[in-house]
Amino acid sequence: MMNKKTAPVGVFDSGVGGLTVAREISRQLPDENIVYFGDTARVPYGSKSQNTIIRFSEQIIRFLKTKEVKAIVIACNTASALALDAVKDEFDIPILGVVIPGARAAVEATKNRKVGVVGTEATVQSGMYTKVIQGMNPEITVIEKACPLFVPLVEEGFKEHQVTEEVIEYYLESMRSTDIDAMILGCTHYPLLRSKIRAYMGDKIQIVNPAYETAMDLKCLLEENDMANDGTEGQHSNYSFYVSDAAEKFRKFANTVMPFDVPITNVVNIEGY
Amino acid sequence: MMNKKTAPVGVFDSGVGGLTVAREISRQLPDENIVYFGDTARVPYGSKSQNTIIRFSEQIIRFLKTKEVKAIVIACNTASALALDAVKDEFDIPILGVVIPGARAAVEATKNRKVGVVGTEATVQSGMYTKVIQGMNPEITVIEKACPLFVPLVEEGFKEHQVTEEVIEYYLESMRSTDIDAMILGCTHYPLLRSKIRAYMGDKIQIVNPAYETAMDLKCLLEENDMANDGTEGQHSNYSFYVSDAAEKFRKFANTVMPFDVPITNVVNIEGY
Repeated sequence: MMNKKTAPVGVFDSGVGGLTVAREISRQLPDENIVYFGDTARVPYGSKSQNTIIRFSEQIIRFLKTKEVKAIVIACNTASALALDAVKDEFDIPILGVVIPGARAAVEATKNRKVGVVGTEATVQSGMYTKVIQGMNPEITVIEKACPLFVPLVEEGFKEHQVTEEVIEYYLESMRSTDIDAMILGCTHYPLLRSKIRAYMGDKIQIVNPAYETAMDLKCLLEENDMANDGTEGQHSNYSFYVSDAAEKFRKFANTVMPFDVPITNVVNIEGY
Repeated sequence: MMNKKTAPVGVFDSGVGGLTVAREISRQLPDENIVYFGDTARVPYGSKSQNTIIRFSEQIIRFLKTKEVKAIVIACNTASALALDAVKDEFDIPILGVVIPGARAAVEATKNRKVGVVGTEATVQSGMYTKVIQGMNPEITVIEKACPLFVPLVEEGFKEHQVTEEVIEYYLESMRSTDIDAMILGCTHYPLLRSKIRAYMGDKIQIVNPAYETAMDLKCLLEENDMANDGTEGQHSNYSFYVSDAAEKFRKFANTVMPFDVPITNVVNIEGY
């Protein structure tokens, strides 16, 4: 029987974006060990169907369970929106997504009860952020907008390019003309465009990154289940990284996100799980 | 034993782009039946590694063989560049890619022996177009350039948007300043940006779309092997479409490309092949 306290937390994403969530967990829960999986062979998830995203998530959870994780964080908004309900019923392990924590943060942030959500096509089509927010407070109006070019712009290094400003204007013009006072960055890539989005949307809007709140939720969950690693064993926390493709490219990107040197990244044939 | 003449031709791509190749085959070889597979669950291929693209191509070829195809066309430039050599050795069926036909068309088109190639990151990194062109004529200089944002721009409907013109300028400025006189559109999505690329690059450059030459090569291959469908059985040619995800979305896009109503598209669990 594994020691639940020292067992690692599994974190997964369609690719590299979820590293921002892993980083936040490492900040808030420095004693926890993490096993990260990025599905780089099948990225992106944002344009794919619910059935496919559930199947991919199931395979990844089966893989993470072979690493004896004590809990799993779905760092990907698309998988959280489309697959969390299905996999929670299916697996006997605590699983957290980023949508519920992100929604709660927005509900707390809004004063005028008008919230904007930006995300992938699949996330927005699911309407999950609206459902969860209105489940918390039915009086809140939610405006969702898919911004499918944001991910490739970040991945292709256009973060600082003028083209990105034009694409932000193209997607967010209609949202800016509303009077929302909080906006969820409902895709793990979008925080990397935060300063340009903030510049376009203006200072009156509070921008919510679900990663922070997700790490807090994980902390509560581990403490409630008496699974938190209290670090009394004196070991340094241990991070391991797995991907389904292009390990070296992943490792280089991960090194720019994580606050330590990312060790060797291993390739997993995820379709076999 | 199947009848080789009436057996269908298999055509595959990472997604919808290869439909432009299927359309060209249907124009030049109207009597041939086609089984098309689009790997919509794992699209795009252009940012992935060679091992992964070979594994995906093997699975698709195994699937197409269950449909008793007599020959296979890899309509995807990335898979043609990275996987053709491997799968040709592995399977006992004629397999054609788009790189060799596209290269030959460019070799015939260039007068000053300077050819440009635009494609995905994986295609350009493989250097396959340069190898094949210089194998045909070692005196030709080849300039390759990856344009990874072109595919998402086309897929997100930005074909006519000003942003697309700026991205074209960003990628092709250095190529325009050379004196190439022929340019290969080395990705099946790029012909959909042809008019904007032509406007930017100017009239002196001959733009090569490998689809046309690929259909001609297929015709030769079928005739040489006495496998061409001569249509004497009086049946209409039959097209069937398979994808790994999001069949209805595929069917709608396919209807905008193919010169006839695309029938029901079937979803295949390609990872099982």
